[in-house]
Amino acid sequence: MAVEERLRELGLVLPTAPAAAGAYVPTVRVGDLLFVAGQLPYENGTVKVQGKLGKDLTIEAGYSAARQCGLNALSQIKEALGSLDNIKKFVRVVGFINSDDGFGDQPKVLNGASELFGQIFGDRGKHTRLAIGVNSLPKQAAVEVEVLVEV
Amino acid sequence: MAVEERLRELGLVLPTAPAAAGAYVPTVRVGDLLFVAGQLPYENGTVKVQGKLGKDLTIEAGYSAARQCGLNALSQIKEALGSLDNIKKFVRVVGFINSDDGFGDQPKVLNGASELFGQIFGDRGKHTRLAIGVNSLPKQAAVEVEVLVEV
Amino acid sequence: MAVEERLRELGLVLPTAPAAAGAYVPTVRVGDLLFVAGQLPYENGTVKVQGKLGKDLTIEAGYSAARQCGLNALSQIKEALGSLDNIKKFVRVVGFINSDDGFGDQPKVLNGASELFGQIFGDRGKHTRLAIGVNSLPKQAAVEVEVLVEV
Repeated sequence: MAVEERLRELGLVLPTAPAAAGAYVPTVRVGDLLFVAGQLPYENGTVKVQGKLGKDLTIEAGYSAARQCGLNALSQIKEALGSLDNIKKFVRVVGFINSDDGFGDQPKVLNGASELFGQIFGDRGKHTRLAIGVNSLPKQAAVEVEVLVEV
Repeated sequence: MAVEERLRELGLVLPTAPAAAGAYVPTVRVGDLLFVAGQLPYENGTVKVQGKLGKDLTIEAGYSAARQCGLNALSQIKEALGSLDNIKKFVRVVGFINSDDGFGDQPKVLNGASELFGQIFGDRGKHTRLAIGVNSLPKQAAVEVEVLVEV
Repeated sequence: MAVEERLRELGLVLPTAPAAAGAYVPTVRVGDLLFVAGQLPYENGTVKVQGKLGKDLTIEAGYSAARQCGLNALSQIKEALGSLDNIKKFVRVVGFINSDDGFGDQPKVLNGASELFGQIFGDRGKHTRLAIGVNSLPKQAAVEVEVLVEV
């Protein structure tokens, strides 16, 4: 099944790919690897989920933020490759989770991105992963997600 | 010398490869690169070293945690490649160290993983590296280590 | 124009490549990718910019630290490749910014490295990027920067 068809089946609409917020570009391809810049939970031009897990936000809110980062990464990949069908395999996903000192459930938050890729791409969506807590992120975003795919 | 022989010489036994703690897989290979998911200091199913460097833990305890992360990464690589002899070269090691604000000795902690790879693999074990302090990690782990090798 | 000529035009002198501060090496090449270890704002053997953004340091001081990290990365690449003309393309830059909890301008800080690469390399200098806030770094450095280039 084509990825766009699967997106429709899941009721998903890709957001407009957010512009790079600095002196850089959203994607770079080297050989079969497509590197995607870190994505924040932008929605219609603003970072929608701000604050810290374990203090300001529930795990559900963090999960939703990570999912939005994942959708934004897909938009960047589509912009770069023309079609999401050109993704051969997800390789690596890194989630930096804005966390209070005592918070230890970063994996549950990052599942928002990981499960999105699984729902859409099945086995091709399976990736290695790091879930890391940090004390601050650009624009007080709750989550920043980096994605690397094989083309 | 075969790597397994060298492990015996050093008195090292590889742990059982920890299961992925979320919607992801432990390793992905792309061409000659094998990406390994972030490893926590799991030992017999529990994260053995928890807490913050510079507050709860000595550098020695952190070093030991990083070494355990390194052993777990080797187990994942063995599971993926069949034999550790299939590692051509270590490429990149990243250590996120659960740290109190004033702690600045992350490199001494991450040496627990770096020196392990050097002891076992010699020149092939030499890698580029990042040592980063963070305020929280999954399950309050003291250290999370990511490894990238050339196959 | 050769990169060294462009450096002279910009009035830039590359620092001596800092020695690795642990059990690792400054660069590893795999195929067309050159991985560079995390660089601190070393200048003449000491980490010149220490402390936290949003608390101890202005954005200008952080920008300057990120630029110094970028210069050190270029020195490591020159040491590895013989000449900076052997860089085909910048691929990925990651900046870990030592930040107070409320600080959210990590992208402005990391521009110190990103704009340096743009000034010297033009379109070849464009890269994907992550800007992440953390609560501590080795030697209380303000910034640590990782660089990946295509050769």
